[in-house]
Amino acid sequence: MRTIGIIGTGLIGGSMALKLREKGFADKFIGADTDEHHAHRAVELGLVDKTGSVDELIAQSDIIVIAIPVVATEKMLSKVLDSAEGKVVLDVGSTKMSLCESVKNHSNRQAFVATHPMWGTEYSGPDAATRMSFEGNVVVICDRNLSGKQALGLTEEVYDALGMKIVYMDSEAHDLHAAYVSHISHITSFALANTVLEKEKEDSAIFQMASAGFESTVRLAKSNPDMWLAIFKQNRENVLDVLNEHITQLKKFRSCFEKDNYEYMHELMENANKIKRIIK
Amino acid sequence: MRTIGIIGTGLIGGSMALKLREKGFADKFIGADTDEHHAHRAVELGLVDKTGSVDELIAQSDIIVIAIPVVATEKMLSKVLDSAEGKVVLDVGSTKMSLCESVKNHSNRQAFVATHPMWGTEYSGPDAATRMSFEGNVVVICDRNLSGKQALGLTEEVYDALGMKIVYMDSEAHDLHAAYVSHISHITSFALANTVLEKEKEDSAIFQMASAGFESTVRLAKSNPDMWLAIFKQNRENVLDVLNEHITQLKKFRSCFEKDNYEYMHELMENANKIKRIIK
Repeated sequence: MRTIGIIGTGLIGGSMALKLREKGFADKFIGADTDEHHAHRAVELGLVDKTGSVDELIAQSDIIVIAIPVVATEKMLSKVLDSAEGKVVLDVGSTKMSLCESVKNHSNRQAFVATHPMWGTEYSGPDAATRMSFEGNVVVICDRNLSGKQALGLTEEVYDALGMKIVYMDSEAHDLHAAYVSHISHITSFALANTVLEKEKEDSAIFQMASAGFESTVRLAKSNPDMWLAIFKQNRENVLDVLNEHITQLKKFRSCFEKDNYEYMHELMENANKIKRIIK
Repeated sequence: MRTIGIIGTGLIGGSMALKLREKGFADKFIGADTDEHHAHRAVELGLVDKTGSVDELIAQSDIIVIAIPVVATEKMLSKVLDSAEGKVVLDVGSTKMSLCESVKNHSNRQAFVATHPMWGTEYSGPDAATRMSFEGNVVVICDRNLSGKQALGLTEEVYDALGMKIVYMDSEAHDLHAAYVSHISHITSFALANTVLEKEKEDSAIFQMASAGFESTVRLAKSNPDMWLAIFKQNRENVLDVLNEHITQLKKFRSCFEKDNYEYMHELMENANKIKRIIK
């Protein structure tokens, strides 16, 4: 008999519950959500068997997954660890340094495993939860030497069951890389949406012409502002560095236009083609 | 008996041939491609029945589709129109003003229809051609009053057969809007790839962590530099305007970070969410 408690029954927590249930990883799933409508929907959709208070959830669960925005996670984690003797606690947030720092002296630190499953969509809430999740993607486990053997082992089992490829990294390196491969993509997408919306005030023909390429680069702009503000705040230094580099790269294109230097523009695009090594 | 000639048997020309054949729109498909390997593959893949010189293709076709990079199209169109008496000629390029300007005084201008089917992928060449193309997307037909009735009617039939939604626009408006909903997306994607590749020189962990969100915003960076350089050149003024606006929008995010003005950053993201009205 194993019970999993999911604090935050949204896209990530809900999808995790769906998939772990499918794999038979636990017998019982309990949820907790500050949003009553979300809690209600989570049961209705069969993501969890029941919902209740966080205290009840902690008391009844063997594994506790914290799947709420990162700033809220930081407030929640210490409290959860206080009552998590003999249990395993993991978070799934997009930033790690600040969170790990916040519990580094907690007497129950070894019960906690800091993880970041690199999967998500631009949608949120329990209705966005899907079985088509996680599989084949990478999960980063941070600072594993600070987690106890049992906690780490069980967490690895969770991600094996989800079909994810586990990568280990310290939390500082994680936050740096996450700025490059995830956080900056969201900023460029938000900014691109604003660029077009600024124009669209003048003319609505843009609506009709929006193509697949546009959708692809702008879809992240539909993401939840609360969630991303928390991530940007916590990863401020790294994101600002990458943003500066990105503006520099865009200015290179601008300068090519201004100087009619199409030879260099071609070079810039040829260099960008090397991204084929990273994404197929 | 209707014969369609496709000049340029790559992604767009090849996909068009595949789909029009499937719909029974013509009996015979002839191709021409300056790249001998592409011409060979186009026959091998069944995109066209045979390939040959452009002169042969013009002589034998009722409808001639020019599907080559935009600068090459401009060189080709006038020559094709010289021998296109009684035939229909259409192009499929991403820029329209310069092309339409180049043939405005051609004695056979009415045989030509300037079109831009808003569909594509980041791949190119005959092997990238696919039946999963065009359907449900918009095609822009430019300056329709300059095309003859027969040419316009037959072109509309072509795009009806491809399942596209036809929108009419003058070529000047087209180029402006295309800059916003297509061309800028490619520049941001190329620049984002360079941003990450610049960093990746120092550390390869980024490879492992690249997620779906990243892939989405960066996939256009795999696009063909020759093709896009031609488009950027021809649409220089508009693209430069949009690029300037985009850099301004990114700088707003930067300023929020620098001043820890997270309230305004939240506003920027909320505003970007309005893109939901445009893309579902």
